Amino acid sequence: MNLTRRVRDILACYEGENPGTKANLARMLMTGKLSGTGKMIILPVDQGFEHGAARSFAVNPPAYDPHYHYKLAIDAGLNAYAAPLGSLAAGADTFAGAIPTILKMNSANSLSTMVKDADQAVTASVDDALRLGCGAIGFTIYPGSDSMFAQYEELRELSREAKAKGLAVIVWSYPRGGEITKEGELAVDVIAYGAHMAALLGANVIKVKLPTDHLGNKESKKVYEEKKIPIATQADRVRHIMQCCFDGRRIVVFSGGAAKGDNAVIEDAKAIFAGGGNGSIIGRNCFQRPREDAMKLLGQLIDVYKGKA
Amino acid sequence: MNLTRRVRDILACYEGENPGTKANLARMLMTGKLSGTGKMIILPVDQGFEHGAARSFAVNPPAYDPHYHYKLAIDAGLNAYAAPLGSLAAGADTFAGAIPTILKMNSANSLSTMVKDADQAVTASVDDALRLGCGAIGFTIYPGSDSMFAQYEELRELSREAKAKGLAVIVWSYPRGGEITKEGELAVDVIAYGAHMAALLGANVIKVKLPTDHLGNKESKKVYEEKKIPIATQADRVRHIMQCCFDGRRIVVFSGGAAKGDNAVIEDAKAIFAGGGNGSIIGRNCFQRPREDAMKLLGQLIDVYKGKA
Amino acid sequence: MNLTRRVRDILACYEGENPGTKANLARMLMTGKLSGTGKMIILPVDQGFEHGAARSFAVNPPAYDPHYHYKLAIDAGLNAYAAPLGSLAAGADTFAGAIPTILKMNSANSLSTMVKDADQAVTASVDDALRLGCGAIGFTIYPGSDSMFAQYEELRELSREAKAKGLAVIVWSYPRGGEITKEGELAVDVIAYGAHMAALLGANVIKVKLPTDHLGNKESKKVYEEKKIPIATQADRVRHIMQCCFDGRRIVVFSGGAAKGDNAVIEDAKAIFAGGGNGSIIGRNCFQRPREDAMKLLGQLIDVYKGKA
Amino acid sequence: MNLTRRVRDILACYEGENPGTKANLARMLMTGKLSGTGKMIILPVDQGFEHGAARSFAVNPPAYDPHYHYKLAIDAGLNAYAAPLGSLAAGADTFAGAIPTILKMNSANSLSTMVKDADQAVTASVDDALRLGCGAIGFTIYPGSDSMFAQYEELRELSREAKAKGLAVIVWSYPRGGEITKEGELAVDVIAYGAHMAALLGANVIKVKLPTDHLGNKESKKVYEEKKIPIATQADRVRHIMQCCFDGRRIVVFSGGAAKGDNAVIEDAKAIFAGGGNGSIIGRNCFQRPREDAMKLLGQLIDVYKGKA
Amino acid sequence: MNLTRRVRDILACYEGENPGTKANLARMLMTGKLSGTGKMIILPVDQGFEHGAARSFAVNPPAYDPHYHYKLAIDAGLNAYAAPLGSLAAGADTFAGAIPTILKMNSANSLSTMVKDADQAVTASVDDALRLGCGAIGFTIYPGSDSMFAQYEELRELSREAKAKGLAVIVWSYPRGGEITKEGELAVDVIAYGAHMAALLGANVIKVKLPTDHLGNKESKKVYEEKKIPIATQADRVRHIMQCCFDGRRIVVFSGGAAKGDNAVIEDAKAIFAGGGNGSIIGRNCFQRPREDAMKLLGQLIDVYKGKA
Repeated sequence: MNLTRRVRDILACYEGENPGTKANLARMLMTGKLSGTGKMIILPVDQGFEHGAARSFAVNPPAYDPHYHYKLAIDAGLNAYAAPLGSLAAGADTFAGAIPTILKMNSANSLSTMVKDADQAVTASVDDALRLGCGAIGFTIYPGSDSMFAQYEELRELSREAKAKGLAVIVWSYPRGGEITKEGELAVDVIAYGAHMAALLGANVIKVKLPTDHLGNKESKKVYEEKKIPIATQADRVRHIMQCCFDGRRIVVFSGGAAKGDNAVIEDAKAIFAGGGNGSIIGRNCFQRPREDAMKLLGQLIDVYKGKA
Repeated sequence: MNLTRRVRDILACYEGENPGTKANLARMLMTGKLSGTGKMIILPVDQGFEHGAARSFAVNPPAYDPHYHYKLAIDAGLNAYAAPLGSLAAGADTFAGAIPTILKMNSANSLSTMVKDADQAVTASVDDALRLGCGAIGFTIYPGSDSMFAQYEELRELSREAKAKGLAVIVWSYPRGGEITKEGELAVDVIAYGAHMAALLGANVIKVKLPTDHLGNKESKKVYEEKKIPIATQADRVRHIMQCCFDGRRIVVFSGGAAKGDNAVIEDAKAIFAGGGNGSIIGRNCFQRPREDAMKLLGQLIDVYKGKA
Repeated sequence: MNLTRRVRDILACYEGENPGTKANLARMLMTGKLSGTGKMIILPVDQGFEHGAARSFAVNPPAYDPHYHYKLAIDAGLNAYAAPLGSLAAGADTFAGAIPTILKMNSANSLSTMVKDADQAVTASVDDALRLGCGAIGFTIYPGSDSMFAQYEELRELSREAKAKGLAVIVWSYPRGGEITKEGELAVDVIAYGAHMAALLGANVIKVKLPTDHLGNKESKKVYEEKKIPIATQADRVRHIMQCCFDGRRIVVFSGGAAKGDNAVIEDAKAIFAGGGNGSIIGRNCFQRPREDAMKLLGQLIDVYKGKA
Repeated sequence: MNLTRRVRDILACYEGENPGTKANLARMLMTGKLSGTGKMIILPVDQGFEHGAARSFAVNPPAYDPHYHYKLAIDAGLNAYAAPLGSLAAGADTFAGAIPTILKMNSANSLSTMVKDADQAVTASVDDALRLGCGAIGFTIYPGSDSMFAQYEELRELSREAKAKGLAVIVWSYPRGGEITKEGELAVDVIAYGAHMAALLGANVIKVKLPTDHLGNKESKKVYEEKKIPIATQADRVRHIMQCCFDGRRIVVFSGGAAKGDNAVIEDAKAIFAGGGNGSIIGRNCFQRPREDAMKLLGQLIDVYKGKA
Repeated sequence: MNLTRRVRDILACYEGENPGTKANLARMLMTGKLSGTGKMIILPVDQGFEHGAARSFAVNPPAYDPHYHYKLAIDAGLNAYAAPLGSLAAGADTFAGAIPTILKMNSANSLSTMVKDADQAVTASVDDALRLGCGAIGFTIYPGSDSMFAQYEELRELSREAKAKGLAVIVWSYPRGGEITKEGELAVDVIAYGAHMAALLGANVIKVKLPTDHLGNKESKKVYEEKKIPIATQADRVRHIMQCCFDGRRIVVFSGGAAKGDNAVIEDAKAIFAGGGNGSIIGRNCFQRPREDAMKLLGQLIDVYKGKA
């Protein structure tokens, strides 16, 4: 399969990486219905770790089965599927080679009492990713948390090993903890800062939440206002995030948060597309719908990212 | 010995594992009077570590001798015997090959003053398990404890090494510490969450306590009530736990807690059987009875799991 | 030198160990005037670390010289000599092969301010033991201390390495710290619990203090009273400790504490002998007496353990 | 390219180093418009990590692109370019061999809540520096911070590895935290102490801020006053810093802090030149100006260091 | 060069050590004007780390240059020169083989806010000592500090590695922190205890401060008074320290503290000589004098240690 011009252009931005890592990025970009477009939709299923199986899957019981998610991602023509060790392993043989997979290396859970020092446990190794045939590792950082520096150092080690072994590195950058308020977690300046740090830490793909137009940091608020950085529309904000990720040299995908109506999900995707973002990483809005509804919604998102909607 | 269809089906769920690990799971499933049924009874003897030798064995003094437990498990036709390093080693040569053994890797004790950060000491290594001829390692996690993340990371390392060396991994998942109340430790939602995390962490076999119908977490209580998840009977709750462990793709065994009457123990086993659970892990209710009473009770449990009771 | 029947029986209990470790146990049991009896007297000299040289040796100044202790242990016909790195090394060449030596791996000191978290520094390595020709390592644990879990994990690593290299492992089990009171440190239930944990941790030889008839733990007190465990006499208590160490499958030696009169020391030994204990580990009551008094006392103790007194 | 006499003299001071490390120091000294003069101007771009992309680059948007900085440093004829992992990697292939690069190994950020224990995360490895073709690593220490000892130990390990692999080591020595006041961070005695410690820690090149004539430490104030150490002018203070760095045996470069007018920047450089300093490390005053203004200013600085201004 | 009888006797006390370590001890004892006498004068220059360059060297500015100290130690005929990594490296090539050097492995500084947990940063590695041609490593412990156990464990590792590689180990034992008062830091019982622990930790050479006749510890005070240990004169106290260091089996050198008059320095040396101590380790009283004054004073000290004064 020849890479498209668009994918070659994207790969050319990853100057510092091994061919193995680039090949895995290429596989994700050349898989599914968005193959070759430079756009991506990824299915992440770590809600069970975050909130428990019942809170995640009782609304759609077939989703208790790890195979369900593999099938959904494959059948909907997505680019990749991400999950923690146990559930990824539970289908790794059945679906070997059927879709690029991302091993989520660390996870938090809602029994944790950590707030200002919000952290995650590292629950898998890079060699787990290799033996399960994954193309990338996923790692969450909490910029602003009092555990942030330790997380960055964990990421450094996992990233170094993953890249040396030809895997790609996807960073979930979610500002949280420390002096960051609930509103600040979604503030455009804070998310843009977190995305920039992920890029500086060597992330190949960066995942952030769609930001609001709130400015969460007093010092940066002055700059945003003085320099009149456009942040009024969602597309503006996506564009700004892309700029903060090495002026568009890094793939950035956006998550939409809690389950919501189809229209809201589609509007988000349109803004991401308009702002030059690379796509969606969409979990609860997939597996917490009945399968056929999820398939339909994903089809509509694919159309958006193909520029047909 | 040809594996039964039931055992082959169970093994097929362990997609991500080495043949060595599967072989050790198969050995446990093909040993003793429940051989081939997919059901298991395991004898765990770590009460001495938890509460001291006298509190554990004075009621039945022959049990001070580590050989006693090996013989009991073998003579009763159980599937496996689990114990900490010192006592397992004390019979490892005499009973070599006579029954699958599980090296309990970590242990707490009642002199510890840790409460919210309840933890255990890791007292053995994977290579100890190999040199003693064990088929599996056992590891306790305390979901909810402020030490939880560190425990998960210890488990990650031990599990990675154990599986790479062909051993199976059995996780004791006991919610405790942090903001979990005494009642919450047995709440069905909390235990189901802990069991799900054990599965996500890569456990091959999951051990939990039989839950009550209490709901311990405000957020999940809403979901359990809204979705009308059946938790009224013990069998319902066992069935729910199995669902939370990858929809039945993982072996789950249940412990019954403190010493109690024969009838109560048998009723528990009937509920586990009815709910589709894989069996019992039963310590104090074995070795704190005179040997012949224990043998009789274990015979009755075996009948339950054979569907004869 | 052919092993006696008694020594062969003792060694047979060490099922899980390498021949190298058994050989070192055998050497200790076959050395000195108690050779072959299954009884042992060990000279431990770590008081200098615990309290300083002057507090330890000013009462008997020749004892400032590390050679003094080697000579005393050899001339008195003891089974082994234990000391920290520096002082053991100071005579290791002169007395090479003259008596089995035990490298004390960790030490506390009286300048430390730790109380509830009482701990020791690990001051030597297993390879030090090998290069100095030692037959065993010695390690202190403080069951009950808030540092207990970390100590158990240090012991796990040192023990694993020592046994892999053919050395024996001797554990000083001294309950202390956490919620343990001064009286509780000597309580028979607490010491028995600490001894049992040492056995579970894989100790080959266990060293405890002679317990009082106090019961230090509310929960275990109930059991001791209910089950009428005999603890009235010192011999009863020694017998109970032996039972808690795998029903006599482990060598247990007892220390007598601060310097005291000859009669008291001899009475202790008689009780240890009567209760089936393996012997004495006796420091201050040796080196804080003039050499000829110490020689005489040790001769009397040897007679006790030979059953002649 | 033959080394100049001046550069050979400088290299001769690095007695303890490998030829590989000296070669990399030589490359920096023999690159750009100051080649062979023993003077250096380095472009450091880690402001994005410290304050976010928008606060760093919105004033001059082309600077969002990592290539911008490489080009600026090359076109202006500077000696080296320093940046964190992600942004350095983003141009490492395009600009391979075009200018010596310095991988900044650790970074702080303005979301951190650490004050007295101010610290940085180590975000790259020495092997990253090698695979990206860097000639040196850069590492920040905060003398005075409660995290200082841990930082020194991180530097020890990274420095040892970097030098063993033929790289040079550049230390950013920025007193901060602990009992150091805001005014004290720039005090000449405190900065001189921090520079001296960097030299003792084995730094090949030392980067400090230009100090004020404030004396921040009571004990050293007495000595400075008693011994009448000249600190009145900026050139005096630079001269004192050089003396504190092994009497001029180490390369020291000075940073100028926040963006300011051209004249102020040039006056700083004249003082550094007059005081015998080795040059400037100048970030915000480069990339926060439009490119042509930055080019002009850098040209003027080069003239200063050539002794033409 | 044949070893003298006195040096051979000293070396014979180092039973546990490799020939490489003994050779390095021999080199120190056979160097300089005290060659072969069993006495030593060592020049230590770590004051720059402790207090900054200006506080250390402004009183005698040539001392800013690391070469100054090498030359002083060589020209005065001292036995060895000790310094931290950076300054030792700065002359390691020029003075290769000219005098035995000691790499000071850890250092504190006066910006640190640690008091009860007083500690030092480990700033060099054993391999640094080898590549720089050193004959020994130097390491400071703070007996009594809440960081003491961690320091002992660092020393264990560095000492093990250093000795395995044929280097000698010199321990600076300076009681400090925890519950030790300022007066207690110099108390003879406390310093004697610290010296004894250094010996137990495996130190080849022990460096302590000259003690006062104060008794700093309540428990040991009783023993010193009861046993009438002679501590009235400085020579008495030196003799007691030697006794506490394995009854004279270890080399002990004494430091004199802050800069003071020539007579006071000479009186100290006379007391050390009279008490059987091995010599002086003298820093500020050397390099804070003009070179010719220092040379004269060192000449007088050498005469004292030759028994000529």
